[in-house]
Amino acid sequence: METISENACFGGLQGVYRHASKATGTDMTFGLFLPVEAQDGPVPVLWYLSGLTCTHENAMVKAGAQAWAAEQGIAVLFPDTSPRGADVPDDDAYDLGQGAGFYVNATQAPWAQHFKMWDYIAEDLPVLVFDRFALDPQRQSITGHSMGGHGALTLAMGLPGRFRSVSAFAPICHPSNGDWGRKQLGAYLGPDSAEWAKHDATLMMRNVGLDIPLLVDTGASDQFIDLLQPEALAQAVMARRLPATLRLQKGYDHSYFFVSTFMEDHISFHAEALYS
Amino acid sequence: METISENACFGGLQGVYRHASKATGTDMTFGLFLPVEAQDGPVPVLWYLSGLTCTHENAMVKAGAQAWAAEQGIAVLFPDTSPRGADVPDDDAYDLGQGAGFYVNATQAPWAQHFKMWDYIAEDLPVLVFDRFALDPQRQSITGHSMGGHGALTLAMGLPGRFRSVSAFAPICHPSNGDWGRKQLGAYLGPDSAEWAKHDATLMMRNVGLDIPLLVDTGASDQFIDLLQPEALAQAVMARRLPATLRLQKGYDHSYFFVSTFMEDHISFHAEALYS
Repeated sequence: METISENACFGGLQGVYRHASKATGTDMTFGLFLPVEAQDGPVPVLWYLSGLTCTHENAMVKAGAQAWAAEQGIAVLFPDTSPRGADVPDDDAYDLGQGAGFYVNATQAPWAQHFKMWDYIAEDLPVLVFDRFALDPQRQSITGHSMGGHGALTLAMGLPGRFRSVSAFAPICHPSNGDWGRKQLGAYLGPDSAEWAKHDATLMMRNVGLDIPLLVDTGASDQFIDLLQPEALAQAVMARRLPATLRLQKGYDHSYFFVSTFMEDHISFHAEALYS
Repeated sequence: METISENACFGGLQGVYRHASKATGTDMTFGLFLPVEAQDGPVPVLWYLSGLTCTHENAMVKAGAQAWAAEQGIAVLFPDTSPRGADVPDDDAYDLGQGAGFYVNATQAPWAQHFKMWDYIAEDLPVLVFDRFALDPQRQSITGHSMGGHGALTLAMGLPGRFRSVSAFAPICHPSNGDWGRKQLGAYLGPDSAEWAKHDATLMMRNVGLDIPLLVDTGASDQFIDLLQPEALAQAVMARRLPATLRLQKGYDHSYFFVSTFMEDHISFHAEALYS
C-alpha cells in the first residue's frame, strides 16, 4: 500500500492511499478519514460509496463528512467507484465503465476481468483497511450517494450482519426498472434479469429485507428523481413494516450541496448504531 | 446579472452569478450563499477571498462554510480571484495573471487594463450585491485563504469602517518581502516598492493598524509557511498592542482540509462582531 497524501483534518488525518486489488486486478485508490481517537485504538468506520463519475476524491472534499465524523469519533472510508487505467475497459457514456462500477461483480465481456466492485468493497478493501488502520470490524456502517446509495443499500442487505446501520443520499432505488440500471446491469451481468435482483434495493427489500436501522434522504427537487424512484423503495420498506426513516427534502437537488446539508443527520444516525 | 446555478443548501441557497464588471472590464463570476433568514430581510455578509489558482468555486464547494454560516444566519460571498477570458492577459506561471490577481489595481502593462481586483472587491461587487440581494451593508466582515488572506487583511486595513471583523487562513503576510509577492507586486504595480506598502498586511499593520477584531490561523506544518511569514504579521500586531488572536495550528498544512477544520471558529468569530 502506498500513501498518496495525508492531511491534518478536524484533529484527525485525511489520507489517500493506493493498493493493488486482487478483486479488480488493478491498483485502486481510496480516501480514509481517521479521527484523533484512532491514535488510541480501533474506531468505528462508516463506508461512503460515491456516485456516477466520482472517484474517491469527490465526497472526500465536498461532502463535509469529516466535521461530523470527528465530532463522533468515527472513521470514514471513501472507495473509488470502479477500476481505472488504460488497460481497463471503458465506455464513452458517463454512466458505464470507469466511474460507473455499480458495485456489482461483472460476468460479461469486456467487463468481467476487472469490474468486481462488489468483491472489492465486500472483501478486498476490508481485509486491507482492518489490517493497516485502527478500525474496528465489529462496528461498520455504510452510506452512499446516488449510485453509491444503491451500493450501500444492496451491500447492507446482501451482507447481513456486516453493518450496524445503513443510510443513503438520493439512492438509485430500483435499477432493474429504470434507465440508471437496466443498461448497466445488462452490460455487467447479462440479459437475464433474474441475475439483477440482488443488485436492486427495492427487490432486495422485498425478497430479503433488512434488520438494521435505515435512513434515506432524497431531494424533492432532485433533477434525477424519476431515475431514482424513491417511491419504489418506500413502498417495499413500508410493506415490510420495517422501522426506517425515509425523507423527501423540500427544494433540494442531487448535488453535494444536498449531501453536505444532511451529512450531520446521517453521521449522527450512524453514530447511534455504532456506539450502542 | 445572470444566474449560473442555484442549489438549496443548509436551508438556504447557494447561488453562482455572472455580471459585467466595470472595474475589470470583463464578465466576473461569484458565488453567494444566502441563509434562509435572507428571505425575511437583509442579513450580514462575510466576504471570503480565495487563494492562488482558485476561482469562485473552490471554497464554495470545499471550505465547508455554509454549514456554519447557516447556523449563524450569515451570507458568504465568494468572488473570483482575477479577471478571466481569452482577451485577458495571462502568464504561464500559476502565481501571476489569471487566478492570481492579488487584490490590487494593476498600473503596469499588460495588466493595467483588466487587473483591478481591489476596485472590484471594494467598489464594484458591493454595489451589485447590495442592490440585488438581501444583504446588509452595515454588517460586513471579511476573511480569506493564502493570497485571499492577504486580500482580506489589506482590504480591512485599507477600508477602515467597512468591515466589522477580519480573519485569515494561512495569509500571505508580508508579500513585499517574499517570493509570493515581490514578483506579483512588481508586475502589477511597478518596481517602486513604496507603491506596494498598502498591499502588504505587515506594513499596513505597522503604518495604519486596525480597529476591528482580528483572527489569523496558519498551519504549523504549512508547506508554504516560509512564503507566508506569519512571524512578520505577528510582530507587527503585537508591537501595536492590538487585541488579536494569532494561532499556529499543530500538524495542519495549506489545504482546504485545514481551512474547513477551522471554518467554524472563524464564522463564530465573525458572527460575534456582526451581531454585536
